[in-house]
Amino acid sequence: MTVQLELVSEHRCYGGWQRYYQHASTAIGLPMRFAVFLPEQTEASSAKAEGGQPMGTTRRPVLIYLAGLTCTEDTFTVKAAAQQYAAHHGLILITPDTSPRGAGAPGEEESWDFGTGAGFYVDATTPDFAKHYRMESYVADELFTLATTVLPGDAERVGIFGHSMGGHGALVLAQRHPDKFKSVSAFAPIAAPTRCPWGEKAFTGYLGEDRSQWEQYDASCLMSQQTTAPYPGGILIDQGLADQFLERELYPHVFEEACAKVGQPLVLRRHDGYDHGYFFIMTFMGDHIAHHARQLGA
Amino acid sequence: MTVQLELVSEHRCYGGWQRYYQHASTAIGLPMRFAVFLPEQTEASSAKAEGGQPMGTTRRPVLIYLAGLTCTEDTFTVKAAAQQYAAHHGLILITPDTSPRGAGAPGEEESWDFGTGAGFYVDATTPDFAKHYRMESYVADELFTLATTVLPGDAERVGIFGHSMGGHGALVLAQRHPDKFKSVSAFAPIAAPTRCPWGEKAFTGYLGEDRSQWEQYDASCLMSQQTTAPYPGGILIDQGLADQFLERELYPHVFEEACAKVGQPLVLRRHDGYDHGYFFIMTFMGDHIAHHARQLGA
Repeated sequence: MTVQLELVSEHRCYGGWQRYYQHASTAIGLPMRFAVFLPEQTEASSAKAEGGQPMGTTRRPVLIYLAGLTCTEDTFTVKAAAQQYAAHHGLILITPDTSPRGAGAPGEEESWDFGTGAGFYVDATTPDFAKHYRMESYVADELFTLATTVLPGDAERVGIFGHSMGGHGALVLAQRHPDKFKSVSAFAPIAAPTRCPWGEKAFTGYLGEDRSQWEQYDASCLMSQQTTAPYPGGILIDQGLADQFLERELYPHVFEEACAKVGQPLVLRRHDGYDHGYFFIMTFMGDHIAHHARQLGA
Repeated sequence: MTVQLELVSEHRCYGGWQRYYQHASTAIGLPMRFAVFLPEQTEASSAKAEGGQPMGTTRRPVLIYLAGLTCTEDTFTVKAAAQQYAAHHGLILITPDTSPRGAGAPGEEESWDFGTGAGFYVDATTPDFAKHYRMESYVADELFTLATTVLPGDAERVGIFGHSMGGHGALVLAQRHPDKFKSVSAFAPIAAPTRCPWGEKAFTGYLGEDRSQWEQYDASCLMSQQTTAPYPGGILIDQGLADQFLERELYPHVFEEACAKVGQPLVLRRHDGYDHGYFFIMTFMGDHIAHHARQLGA
């Protein structure tokens, strides 16, 4: 496989490199962008070379972050204050866009919670969306492969986390691909999308009217169907109690009950006064990256 | 003085509160916005109250950040990853907008480096700009007073820092108001604006054609004219060597020479590979806030 990654921009950051890439995505069939923080440990430094040790590229653990509705690859990169922790632990931090752009599917530009900026990390099956809205394949296959072949990630040590729609994506993709993702956490995830308006709208559009098809992309349904804890090391979720979407859209207690039922260790922390935004996310970012670093042996 | 601060929004963040305010500015004569991070230490926590100690408001040191061209009060707040350090040191972190908005001055919307978003932290004297473009008075008088009366800042412990145009603002306002600002630092400041295109354009527009009037707002000129080091505790400047504006606009070596001449201690750190943006700023933010915390006794 020949992969052409176009470097859009590069910035030194905490001793490493914050990069933005664009590429022709095979999974999506359109150009896609992602951002990646490469810690200093991934490249031979001139200082080390001068010290007489020729250093090749060192493969490091990878942590994939999935963002929420309306976001791009830039949102987390700019707002989450995460690079410092990735630099500390020597993790590669990679974040994709949240949907195809310019797919031309009917209605994709009409609302902020469906279509463009709202891919929901599923592979769509409805005729209008099946061609390009394939965010599950994009993240779990194509981006995973890019991160661990073209980029210097270690394929045996990849974790996944995200926020809101991206928290849903992380909890779902981790359960659907436990061979690939060795650690998982989420901020304010849409934890039971088959029961909430955002999920109903997205799944109707991407998966069709048959609700039985939706359960394969509902983190709580998936967990209920587990026969043994898929992440025995534990799952971490942070949830603000002043989150404006908590009651209507998120349902963390449903996921909590499902985890209890199958014996999946879960640390679900509820925080007084915190809302749904990046000031909440940045506050607990260090804990999440430490959680992954521990489980990935970083 | 009755001051009406309108709370635009509030978000819990690192145990404290990130707030956005709007108010009718007397210095500017128009509505102005600013953002402020209040650390947990500024308010009685319910936990402390339950512990039997009725806690009043505790006045804490203040650090004012001045942003660069095109920025608003939101830029630093969202991109700089600074709140964590303010929370750690118990500092109030406050950042104003970079100019009046909607002043109606001729040409103010025509370029990104003059007028709206580019107030240069001066009190303008030219007829077109003198009425509203009074960012020096706004920051050094009005915002200083708000921070230390309406907000729980300690008027004896206020520092100032900034980036690019805001680094110029910090180095200039500190020297023009040493009674108010007890510590100062800058990221990639416009250190000799009388010599560079950005400064020439701004000073011509705000101060007129008489270049002798410009020197009072040039950090390097001001330092050259000092008879004794104004900040004996030291000034900290970080500068990226891959900064796209370094050669043409910034002139840190001129400020360095001026400091050497008057015996002003200066730590000017030059960083290989870092550019002019917030990935550079966030990398060294912790060092800057520690510098101020030390000098302000936080």
